[in-house]
Amino acid sequence: MLHFTFLGTSSGVPTLTRNVSALAIRNSKNKDWILVDAGEGTQHRIQQAKLSLQSLVAICITHVHGDHCYGLVGLLASAGMNARTAPLTIIAPKEIQKWIEVTAQLTDLHLPYSLNFIDVDVNEATQIHQITDELSIQAHPLSHRVPSFAFSIIAQYTQKKLDTQALIQLGVPKGKAWGDLQQNLDIQFNGQALKAADFIQTHTHRVHAIVGGDNDRPELLAQACQDAQLLIHESTYTQAILDKVGSGPMHSSAKIVAEFAQQQGLSNLILTHFSPRHQDNAGQQAIAEEVRKFYQGNFYLAHDFDQFILDAIGQLSKVNLK
Amino acid sequence: MLHFTFLGTSSGVPTLTRNVSALAIRNSKNKDWILVDAGEGTQHRIQQAKLSLQSLVAICITHVHGDHCYGLVGLLASAGMNARTAPLTIIAPKEIQKWIEVTAQLTDLHLPYSLNFIDVDVNEATQIHQITDELSIQAHPLSHRVPSFAFSIIAQYTQKKLDTQALIQLGVPKGKAWGDLQQNLDIQFNGQALKAADFIQTHTHRVHAIVGGDNDRPELLAQACQDAQLLIHESTYTQAILDKVGSGPMHSSAKIVAEFAQQQGLSNLILTHFSPRHQDNAGQQAIAEEVRKFYQGNFYLAHDFDQFILDAIGQLSKVNLK
Repeated sequence: MLHFTFLGTSSGVPTLTRNVSALAIRNSKNKDWILVDAGEGTQHRIQQAKLSLQSLVAICITHVHGDHCYGLVGLLASAGMNARTAPLTIIAPKEIQKWIEVTAQLTDLHLPYSLNFIDVDVNEATQIHQITDELSIQAHPLSHRVPSFAFSIIAQYTQKKLDTQALIQLGVPKGKAWGDLQQNLDIQFNGQALKAADFIQTHTHRVHAIVGGDNDRPELLAQACQDAQLLIHESTYTQAILDKVGSGPMHSSAKIVAEFAQQQGLSNLILTHFSPRHQDNAGQQAIAEEVRKFYQGNFYLAHDFDQFILDAIGQLSKVNLK
Repeated sequence: MLHFTFLGTSSGVPTLTRNVSALAIRNSKNKDWILVDAGEGTQHRIQQAKLSLQSLVAICITHVHGDHCYGLVGLLASAGMNARTAPLTIIAPKEIQKWIEVTAQLTDLHLPYSLNFIDVDVNEATQIHQITDELSIQAHPLSHRVPSFAFSIIAQYTQKKLDTQALIQLGVPKGKAWGDLQQNLDIQFNGQALKAADFIQTHTHRVHAIVGGDNDRPELLAQACQDAQLLIHESTYTQAILDKVGSGPMHSSAKIVAEFAQQQGLSNLILTHFSPRHQDNAGQQAIAEEVRKFYQGNFYLAHDFDQFILDAIGQLSKVNLK
């Protein structure tokens, strides 16, 4: 299962209620988490959301625009001051590596842990990066004013379960015998050798969410989405405002994303990265109505600190934070 | 008069109640303001404090450490997105100019206004930079792990006042005659020509505050402080903690700053830049007690969003925000 905490849902500039882009995705089985984007103030949001920089395993940066990356160096510095020593993987356009290196040099920044940079430009859409035993990441190119990417975040769990049906049929009583088999120990029963391997069933759960960066062509994710249970995508404007603003900024409207999700048969959609003009109640309602008009699946508009769970069978629910 | 709003008072890392360094200093007569330091999240604090990036006239950066400058590029970007066109002066170590330029290049940042960089290293302690008709800035070198500076912020106002005493003695009645003289118009009274210049008294008020960067030798400010009514200085630790931490970080204790202020005969002192370990009630009390022990003047420990006024006769008071 994957657990999502939105740390920033505003496009371009922070507002009094929403910070610029950042999203924490945690492996629900332990504390490991991945950060996608790090707009300025992300480390403050991380503190407020009670996430630990010690258990952060990877940072993905979708593109180089400041509202998606200007919080990166402060976050790395603070992790260092909090005595992090574990290496950290950063999957990002190569400019980000350059920026961190130049910044460190100019601002006397010395990190007590190493950074493992993966250049997303080179590896785009081909390689799957295994981050932990259970979490992996794959990048997909998008369409924006600068190279922009979406990231597949994949959690794969192998669950071992005792074949209790078979044991009952054989008359093996519950208790020590079942426990030994569960612990992968072969046992003797009624003079017969029972091999643990014959009674342990392996189930693999795979959960796959795609988190997009800025993008005006959601259809670029068509292939990646065939395997995904959730798409998290920008919806900077309503279609009416996008028509007014024009195609220059290269962002998506709610309509464009909703139509894509519908055609794709996607079960779950979360929209984020709203223009400040769409952040009041009326603006959010306009976005929601537009999505509802073109998409029949399960969808949410993200607010800062919203939490969601994508469970083992790919169902998405919002965490009730009271 | 000068009006101070503390936007960040934490040393090194942000905490849940205090952000990293930033201080807004406004000319009380209009909206012009100067920002000293811009740790990450300063633009968020600026929004919360209802200050406008449009009326910001200069940014001073005391030194290159991230907790004093990582909020700079996001702030500049947001001012651009808010359609600022007025040039902006930045007085800072030369590395800051380089950092902004490289960041702009790597992150596709295009500002719709120009930056007027003043290299504080070259001009240190000699030149007075006139920022507006009333505000000027002068830098003073300090002692820290990297080149660090204090900034004198000087407000000078010329007030024109009618010499009402003289007019009463001459028997000139209040009303139009006084009004004309006040407007610098010569008048006729009882067949006599009265020249406005003879009845207008010019008073010049000068208010001078010094805002220090990180520094372990406050005595470096001895000369500059002779002319100042207020010193704002870091006090990262109590003396006991400084003794434990050692001199490596090159910060000041409350004792060191208080002793300096006392020797100097300074009227007003504000301490800031507290280590997270000194941010709870007990920690603040320990700092305050140490200052009280060594300094008999008027002092405050700054919290985020605290506001102070240094009035025309150099008296400092805290603004009651309820």
